[in-house]
Amino acid sequence: MMEFKVQQLQIKAGKYKVVLNPEDAKEIGVRAGDRVQIKDHSYLTAIAEIGDMISKGNVGVYQDICVKLGAECPLTVDIVPTSRPSSVGFIKKMMDKQKLTQEEIHQVIQDIVKENLTDIELAAFVTSSYIHGMSNDEIEWMTRAMIDTGEKIEFDTHPIMDKHSIGGVPGNKISLLVVPIIAANGLLIPKTSSRAITGAAGTADLMEILAPVAFSAEEIKTMTEKVGGVIVWGGATNIAPADDKLIRAEYPLSIDPRCQLLASIMAKKGAVGADCVVIDIPVGAGTKVHTMEDGKKLGRDLIDLGERLGMNVECAMTYGASPVGRTIGPAVEVREALKVLETTQGPNSLIEKSTALAGILLEMGGAAPKGGGKAMAVETLRSGKALLKLKEIIEAQGGDPKISYKDINPGEHRGELLSPADGYVIEFDNKRIVEIARIAGAPIDSGAGVWIHRKKGEQVKKGEPLITIFSDKSWKLTKAIKTAEKDYPIIVEGMLLERVRPFRVL
Amino acid sequence: MMEFKVQQLQIKAGKYKVVLNPEDAKEIGVRAGDRVQIKDHSYLTAIAEIGDMISKGNVGVYQDICVKLGAECPLTVDIVPTSRPSSVGFIKKMMDKQKLTQEEIHQVIQDIVKENLTDIELAAFVTSSYIHGMSNDEIEWMTRAMIDTGEKIEFDTHPIMDKHSIGGVPGNKISLLVVPIIAANGLLIPKTSSRAITGAAGTADLMEILAPVAFSAEEIKTMTEKVGGVIVWGGATNIAPADDKLIRAEYPLSIDPRCQLLASIMAKKGAVGADCVVIDIPVGAGTKVHTMEDGKKLGRDLIDLGERLGMNVECAMTYGASPVGRTIGPAVEVREALKVLETTQGPNSLIEKSTALAGILLEMGGAAPKGGGKAMAVETLRSGKALLKLKEIIEAQGGDPKISYKDINPGEHRGELLSPADGYVIEFDNKRIVEIARIAGAPIDSGAGVWIHRKKGEQVKKGEPLITIFSDKSWKLTKAIKTAEKDYPIIVEGMLLERVRPFRVL
Repeated sequence: MMEFKVQQLQIKAGKYKVVLNPEDAKEIGVRAGDRVQIKDHSYLTAIAEIGDMISKGNVGVYQDICVKLGAECPLTVDIVPTSRPSSVGFIKKMMDKQKLTQEEIHQVIQDIVKENLTDIELAAFVTSSYIHGMSNDEIEWMTRAMIDTGEKIEFDTHPIMDKHSIGGVPGNKISLLVVPIIAANGLLIPKTSSRAITGAAGTADLMEILAPVAFSAEEIKTMTEKVGGVIVWGGATNIAPADDKLIRAEYPLSIDPRCQLLASIMAKKGAVGADCVVIDIPVGAGTKVHTMEDGKKLGRDLIDLGERLGMNVECAMTYGASPVGRTIGPAVEVREALKVLETTQGPNSLIEKSTALAGILLEMGGAAPKGGGKAMAVETLRSGKALLKLKEIIEAQGGDPKISYKDINPGEHRGELLSPADGYVIEFDNKRIVEIARIAGAPIDSGAGVWIHRKKGEQVKKGEPLITIFSDKSWKLTKAIKTAEKDYPIIVEGMLLERVRPFRVL
Repeated sequence: MMEFKVQQLQIKAGKYKVVLNPEDAKEIGVRAGDRVQIKDHSYLTAIAEIGDMISKGNVGVYQDICVKLGAECPLTVDIVPTSRPSSVGFIKKMMDKQKLTQEEIHQVIQDIVKENLTDIELAAFVTSSYIHGMSNDEIEWMTRAMIDTGEKIEFDTHPIMDKHSIGGVPGNKISLLVVPIIAANGLLIPKTSSRAITGAAGTADLMEILAPVAFSAEEIKTMTEKVGGVIVWGGATNIAPADDKLIRAEYPLSIDPRCQLLASIMAKKGAVGADCVVIDIPVGAGTKVHTMEDGKKLGRDLIDLGERLGMNVECAMTYGASPVGRTIGPAVEVREALKVLETTQGPNSLIEKSTALAGILLEMGGAAPKGGGKAMAVETLRSGKALLKLKEIIEAQGGDPKISYKDINPGEHRGELLSPADGYVIEFDNKRIVEIARIAGAPIDSGAGVWIHRKKGEQVKKGEPLITIFSDKSWKLTKAIKTAEKDYPIIVEGMLLERVRPFRVL
C-alpha cells in the first residue's frame, strides 16, 4: 500500500478513474486499465490511467471520485492494485465463443451499468456479441439483466399495452395517434420513447413540442393510471439503463448486434410491466430490415423472446421504403399528426398505419373483438375520442391541452426544391431527405424539417415544388439547400441532372 | 461552423481530444467518439467527448492539442464535425469477416500509430483479429505496415543477425550470452529487446544493470557497426511503434492474437534490417506454447512470414517447463549469466540453450560450417572471447567494462523457503515463482528476485532451502514471503501441506 497526494482533476470521467505517474505505477505494479483500490475512510475501486502530467507521489483524481469520497476531497489516499472485475473474464469467454451462464451475463450487464468497465472492455463485449451472437438463453438472460439493473414500474391493473417501432423509416409519428386511440378505449399504455439518434425526430422529440417528456418511473405510473397513457422520454428514467451505455460503444462502430437489438427492445417493455406489445417492423430499402424474410425472422425472434419473458408480442411488417405521411422533423410532424386527429383528414399512409397497429393492440388487450380492432381504432379517431384523449395526456404531462395543429409553426426560413421537368418521381432517397432535415437543424431545432410534396411514383410538373425545407436559422437553411443541390435526393424522370439550380428561397 | 471559447484541461490525453457541452454537441450534431475539425490557423482533427463540466459555448481542450496548436493555446477555435477515419470502416469490414487490402491494413496501422483511433475502435480491431484471425497476406501486410510506420535501420554490411524468444519461460537470460558469442565471430547483431511486462525481468531490464539501454535507431546502428552487437531497449526507439499501442488494448483483455504475435515479432526484426533470425520457442506447461505440435505450427508460421519478408528464419523449440538457469529477477540473472561468461561454469540449462541457439545463428550467418555452430559457440564462450565482446558492448553502450559478476549484488533483504520434508520436488510452479519475484519488487527494483536451489525432480533434505527470495525493501520481502506461504509454489513429495511455517528471514 502506498500513500499518494491527491491532485484533483477538474474533469468528470463518467466513471471512477485515477491517473498515476508512470514510475509510481510501475512501482506498485499497475498498468493502464488495471484496477486500483483507493482507501480513504472507505474503499473505492477505480480504473488506473498512466500519465506523466502527474508527478511522482501524486494521484490524479477525476471529479467523480471526489464526489464519491465526500464533500471534501481527501488530501491523501492509499492506493493498492486490485483485480479486474470478474466480468472481464466473462467477456474473454465470449470472445472465445463459449456460452455464458445467467449469473455471468448479469454480472457483465451490472458492471456496464455501474460504469465498472473501460471502453476497451466494453468494446470487446459488443464486438464479440456482434461477431458470435448469443443463444436464445443468453438473450433472455441479458434482457432480464437489463430489466433488473434499472427501475421497474409495477401496475396494479392489467393488461399493460405497449408499442415499439424498429425504426429506419422517416416521418414515423404514429405513436401520437396510437397511444391516444388505445388509452381512449380504456387500456393502459405507458409509452416510453427515444429521441432521434440518427433520425430527424424521435417520438420523444415530437411529444416535447406538446408537453414536457422527462419524468420518473413513479410519475409515469401515476399519469398512466390517471389518463390511461403517456408519451414520455425513456432517457429521463432509469429504465433499462444498460441500453444507452451499450449504444455508446456500438454507435462509433456502426453496429447493432441482433442480440442487443432484441434485448434492448424487450427490456424496455419488460421494465414498464407490459403484457401485450405490438412491434412495427418497417421493411424495405433504407430501413433496418431489407426483405420480408428478414422481417419475419426478426418478428419470430421478438415473439419468442416475449414468450420467455411472459409478454404477448405481435409484430406487424409495414411498408418502410417511403416516409410515413409527408413530413419529417419535429414541428412539421406534430402538425401533421395533430391535424389528422383534429380533422380526420391527412395522408393515407399515416392514418392507415396508425389505425392498423392500434387495432392489433385493441384486440390483444381485449377491448375489441378479434378482427374488429382496426374498425374500432378508425372510429376512435373519427369520433374525436382520440383527440380528446391526447389532450388529456398533454395536460397530464403539463402541456397546454388547448393546442391546435394551426398553432404549430415550422421554422421561418424556408426553401423549396422545384421540379426541373414534367414527369414522375422515380427516385426518392429517404436517407438523404433525413440528412437534409438534420442539416436544417432537426431534431434539436424543433422548427427544422422537410415537407414532402411529391413521393416516389407521384406525378409532378416542371416548376412545382418537390419538397419544402424549413429551418429556424438561415445559415442552416443555406447549408441544407447546398447539400440537397450537391447530391440530389429526388429524381424526376427525364430531368436534366446537370446545371439545375432548382431552389427558390421563400 | 461554430466558434468556441477554449478551456484548457490540464491533462494529456495521449491523443487529440476535446470535450463539448452536451447541448453544443447536439447543436452541431456531434456524439461521443465522433471526430471534429478544430480550426485555428490550421486544421486539426480531434476526437470529441461530451461532458457537462464544460459550459455551453466552451470547448475543453486536452494539453496535446494546445501543444500542437502552438506555444500559446488560442482563446477561441472554430469547430466543425468531420467524418471518422476511413480505418474505422475497415475495422467494421474485419468484424464482418471480410478480408482487407494492403492499403486498408496500412491505413489502420497508421491511424493506430498516430493515435487517431479511440479505445473503442482499437478494441474492436484487436477483438476482431483475435476472433477471426488474418490471412497470411494480411499478416504480411500488417507486418510491413508496422515496419513502415516506424523508424528503420539500414546497415551497409550484411548479413544482419537477430534473435527472439517467444517468452513465457522464467530466467531466460540467454541473450546476454548469445549476442556476444555472435558478435565475437564477426557477425552484426543489433538486438533490441523489451522490458518485462508480466515477467520478472526482460532482456532490457537485465542489460540495464550493466549499461544504459535507451538509444535511438541511429545510435544502435553506429554501436553495432563499431563493436558488432548491442543489447538495447526497443521501447526507447521508434521501431515498430504500433506494437506497444496494440498491446495497450490487448493486455486488459488478456489476449495475444496470433496474427499480431507474428507481425509484432517479425516487424521488429524487419525494422532493424535482419537477414537471419533464430527464434526460441519455449514449449511446455506455463509457457505460451503448450505442445510440440503447437510449437511446430508457430515455427512454420514464423518461417513463412520471414520468407515473405525476405528474412531467413529458423526456429528452435526449447524446454520451457522449468526456468532457464537458477535465477529469476534482474540482478541475480545478470550475476548468473556473467559468471558463466567469466568462469564458463554454471547451470547446464543456461549454457546448453545459449550455445545451441548461438550455434544456429553462426551457421545461418556463414561463420560456422553446417553442423559446426554449436561447437564454435562453446569455444567462443570457453576461450573468453564472448566475455571480452560483452565488455566491448557494455563499454559501447556507456557502461563499465570492468564489471565482474562478483560486483552484482542482489537485494539485501532475504528470506529462504526451507523444505519441510526429505524428498523430491514434485511440483514447481513457474508462474508462482515469477509472481513472488514480482511481489519482491522485480523488475523495477533490480535487486529483487529469486534464487532457485531445487528445481523439479531434484532431491532435497528437510530444512534445506528450496528458494531464496531477494528484495531491496523489507516490506516487499515480507509481502513476497506471505504470498509464498499462502499458496505454496514448490511441493516436496511427502511434505505436510498444512501448518508449515517454512520461512527463515536471513
